[in-house]
Amino acid sequence: MPAAALDFWFDFASTYSYPAMIRIRPLAAANGVAVRLRPFLLGPIFKAHGWDTSPFNLYEAKGRYMWRDMERLCAELGLPFRRPEPFPQNSLTAARLALIGLDEGWGDAFCEAVFRAEFGEGRRIDDAATLASILTGLKVDGGRALASAQSDANKARLRAQTDEARRLGLFGAPSFITPDGELFWGNDRLEAALTWVKRKR
Amino acid sequence: MPAAALDFWFDFASTYSYPAMIRIRPLAAANGVAVRLRPFLLGPIFKAHGWDTSPFNLYEAKGRYMWRDMERLCAELGLPFRRPEPFPQNSLTAARLALIGLDEGWGDAFCEAVFRAEFGEGRRIDDAATLASILTGLKVDGGRALASAQSDANKARLRAQTDEARRLGLFGAPSFITPDGELFWGNDRLEAALTWVKRKR
Repeated sequence: MPAAALDFWFDFASTYSYPAMIRIRPLAAANGVAVRLRPFLLGPIFKAHGWDTSPFNLYEAKGRYMWRDMERLCAELGLPFRRPEPFPQNSLTAARLALIGLDEGWGDAFCEAVFRAEFGEGRRIDDAATLASILTGLKVDGGRALASAQSDANKARLRAQTDEARRLGLFGAPSFITPDGELFWGNDRLEAALTWVKRKR
Repeated sequence: MPAAALDFWFDFASTYSYPAMIRIRPLAAANGVAVRLRPFLLGPIFKAHGWDTSPFNLYEAKGRYMWRDMERLCAELGLPFRRPEPFPQNSLTAARLALIGLDEGWGDAFCEAVFRAEFGEGRRIDDAATLASILTGLKVDGGRALASAQSDANKARLRAQTDEARRLGLFGAPSFITPDGELFWGNDRLEAALTWVKRKR
């Protein structure tokens, strides 16, 4: 991993992380910027705000807007879009699996597949069958991967990654952090984050 | 005003409404889109969320990010930026004056001048002296304008405009509403809103 990677922080439950995940690889490659995937959990951060669910559920007008905006955005990108039910999905197991996959070389493909299943096909990512079929599609031994994902060490690792997100000042996803510590929040700031990395070289 | 105007909803206290106000005229003109300025008050809408101040004050990490993002954004646009103290400013009188100015032909220049004073020069827009000096700069009789602004009819008009904002589903500023009713939220969605208006012609 080159030192100058852009950290891409996301939660699998986060709507705008879906287009960000699809867009980041080609855009980063076109800009010669390496990307490091950093799955984390927004839940604990939202809880510290006193929120027990997504702000898109708590604030009705904001939620209504977001769903329409996602429809428009995905149409523009030629991406299929299905509103997940329930929302937000429980992203815990997917995030734990992603950490294992990122160690073992199948993490990028896994993360993209999870987002496509959830937001493109309306599949539940807290359903073991969804995750198993994604792993099978990647030719990964699902039983072994899941056992590693649910190990105490890996659970602690996801907790530590979420703590790091909070320490870095993250409050939403997707978020991008440049090698010199600049935070950019939102799918619509991806281009600005990449431009920042290029300029600082 | 042509029928196909893009409605630009803003609160003078709203940080991201500053770059939106500066950018909208040239961008709209370049796209052949007319713009209608719709000042309103976010306060009553935030109150309905249980917030008694800006969410940027309530949620510390989000606020810290916003100030840094505004710095970067204004630097990129070559706009002066000063963090207003206090934040948010009380925008009531400025909004009432804007309604009068928009009737009388000095509204566009007034709105831009208020944003520049507040976010470019760090002046208080709840200070009568700030508003008076802006009006003088526009060769407007400040005493007369202020009397019209503070009339019961005009106060009711601003309340009605804020009620309309809520009915339209606005939850933040800046917001843009296209002639066919599409809502776009945020300075970073201005281009998307203009593209939408052009395509639907």
